[in-house]
Amino acid sequence: MQKQIKLIKRPVGLPTKEDFEYHEVAIGEPTESQLLVRTVYISVDPYLRGRMNDVKSYIPPFELDSVITSGVIGQVVTSKSTQFKAGDLVMGSLGWQQYSIVNETDVRKIDTDLAPASAYLSVLGMTGLTAYFGLLDIGKPKAGETVVVSGAAGAVGSIVGQIAKDKGAYVVGIAGSDDKVNYLVDQLGFDAAINYKTEDVNKALDAACPNGIDVYFENVGGEIADAVFPLLNNFARIPVCGAISTYNSEGNNVGPRVQEYLIKTSSLMQGFTVGNYSSRFSEGAAALGKMLQTGKLQYNETVTDGFDQTIDAFLDLFKGANTGKAIVKVSEIEPN
Amino acid sequence: MQKQIKLIKRPVGLPTKEDFEYHEVAIGEPTESQLLVRTVYISVDPYLRGRMNDVKSYIPPFELDSVITSGVIGQVVTSKSTQFKAGDLVMGSLGWQQYSIVNETDVRKIDTDLAPASAYLSVLGMTGLTAYFGLLDIGKPKAGETVVVSGAAGAVGSIVGQIAKDKGAYVVGIAGSDDKVNYLVDQLGFDAAINYKTEDVNKALDAACPNGIDVYFENVGGEIADAVFPLLNNFARIPVCGAISTYNSEGNNVGPRVQEYLIKTSSLMQGFTVGNYSSRFSEGAAALGKMLQTGKLQYNETVTDGFDQTIDAFLDLFKGANTGKAIVKVSEIEPN
Repeated sequence: MQKQIKLIKRPVGLPTKEDFEYHEVAIGEPTESQLLVRTVYISVDPYLRGRMNDVKSYIPPFELDSVITSGVIGQVVTSKSTQFKAGDLVMGSLGWQQYSIVNETDVRKIDTDLAPASAYLSVLGMTGLTAYFGLLDIGKPKAGETVVVSGAAGAVGSIVGQIAKDKGAYVVGIAGSDDKVNYLVDQLGFDAAINYKTEDVNKALDAACPNGIDVYFENVGGEIADAVFPLLNNFARIPVCGAISTYNSEGNNVGPRVQEYLIKTSSLMQGFTVGNYSSRFSEGAAALGKMLQTGKLQYNETVTDGFDQTIDAFLDLFKGANTGKAIVKVSEIEPN
Repeated sequence: MQKQIKLIKRPVGLPTKEDFEYHEVAIGEPTESQLLVRTVYISVDPYLRGRMNDVKSYIPPFELDSVITSGVIGQVVTSKSTQFKAGDLVMGSLGWQQYSIVNETDVRKIDTDLAPASAYLSVLGMTGLTAYFGLLDIGKPKAGETVVVSGAAGAVGSIVGQIAKDKGAYVVGIAGSDDKVNYLVDQLGFDAAINYKTEDVNKALDAACPNGIDVYFENVGGEIADAVFPLLNNFARIPVCGAISTYNSEGNNVGPRVQEYLIKTSSLMQGFTVGNYSSRFSEGAAALGKMLQTGKLQYNETVTDGFDQTIDAFLDLFKGANTGKAIVKVSEIEPN
């Protein structure tokens, strides 16, 4: 038997444990071209909150009483496929459960010579690609420009800032604790960072961005974003990746309208999701892998131990508890 | 002697007559390479409201106690330039006064064989170019897509809708009276139009756009814009041209934040001003001239008679009193 996690109620506002339920079910047996995969790491991500609502979006909502899915790293236990063997490490979009039966086309092997397995859920996975394409394809930072990143110590934000630094930009991060602020400046090389919980964001941003803001990488929305618009330079670009501060708002997400700011500065806001760039994933992964190998890209993970902690790890995202990528470790990788 | 209009106070909220003052001054004499030009038509435009505030924008604010400037058509009275002769019709950015002394490089001749002189302030001038570049360069409407235009019976909006129809789009206009709604559908060929003053814009838009919204040409901002965001299709485009409903708001312009809508649909908002496209004006003017000659482009003017009515014509813009381009006729064109 194994455990799995189902969504049983659509959260209203902040999700609670009562919205989820653990079930015990049989592990099952793979048939022709299938694999039995033991879950090693589960990715918990802010965007999953959106899928828990029953609304049209870029990705269909989770169905009630179904197992939640997200990025997963697993190890093959039994293979009925000629393309995989027991012990292989694989990744795919799999269920929140201890074991999965998957088709051979649903997962791909990962190369742990390049980076540890968990990196494929963060810097070398969707997280890194989200940062890469959002910043470079929409934000288009140029050397000497000012790039502001919110959620800067988070999984995506921390990579965005480092890529922007690599492009020669002046990079300012916004995060929610002094530890995170120090991490951004001391460890990741950000030029400045702001603790939005203890500083007046309007004043701090104004002080940190004496030349205005050319690129704002949006991860959080809400009042932090409101403070950015008055500082935009002409032809500023705003990749809109996330709005975690507002995901749990119950119809009360109002703030200054942005139209006049955009007109005055001819600025651009572009919502996106990493899936828009699927035809270019290999380009992005190669570039990120190269930055990683040459020491230009550091990443951090907040790893929570144990399948039973998965819901807590997810709920912690909305408390700002993680630095870097939030991952649940479900089992150990077994040596081949 | 002649009259001129100066800005003497920065308007708070809606401008009033007390913010302006008429002065009597000498007409003056042109010197070498200069012209004396008699004002024929003055363009009154919503964007001028922004220049009356003392804030950084794409165009510097008007200085207090200075003559207001905007697009003007004039007729040469006396020429000290070899490039112009008395009787020539010219256009330029000139003062709100009955006569101007201008350098020969500040104005250019217009061709009244192609269209009446006033058209160079509307469909063949900045107004038409604003519609042309905003819609085609940012909105990029494709055949069969749904294009929504606010301020649809206004100078820019009425041209936007016609260009969108020419590109094969399904075009829905939002305007402020039944007369305007009828004009859009019956005269300009819009597929549908909504009177935001008598209809529930949310419901009416939903009904008028059964396939969602692919392009929203933003002229008005405020609650009308708020109603558009929930109906955006994936990869929608929003050229942000104006926000007339909010120009006179006194720091109270709040509404639903747009980030989540942009993320869910990977939509784009791009503020712009026609000056961004100055290197392509001849392309735009040629395309608009061709549409005009082939009968694909109709335009409407609200012409107010008399220099003394200039302030009223400007204030009327914010009451939605005009259909098409608002112009003040200051003097008659004299035959050569």
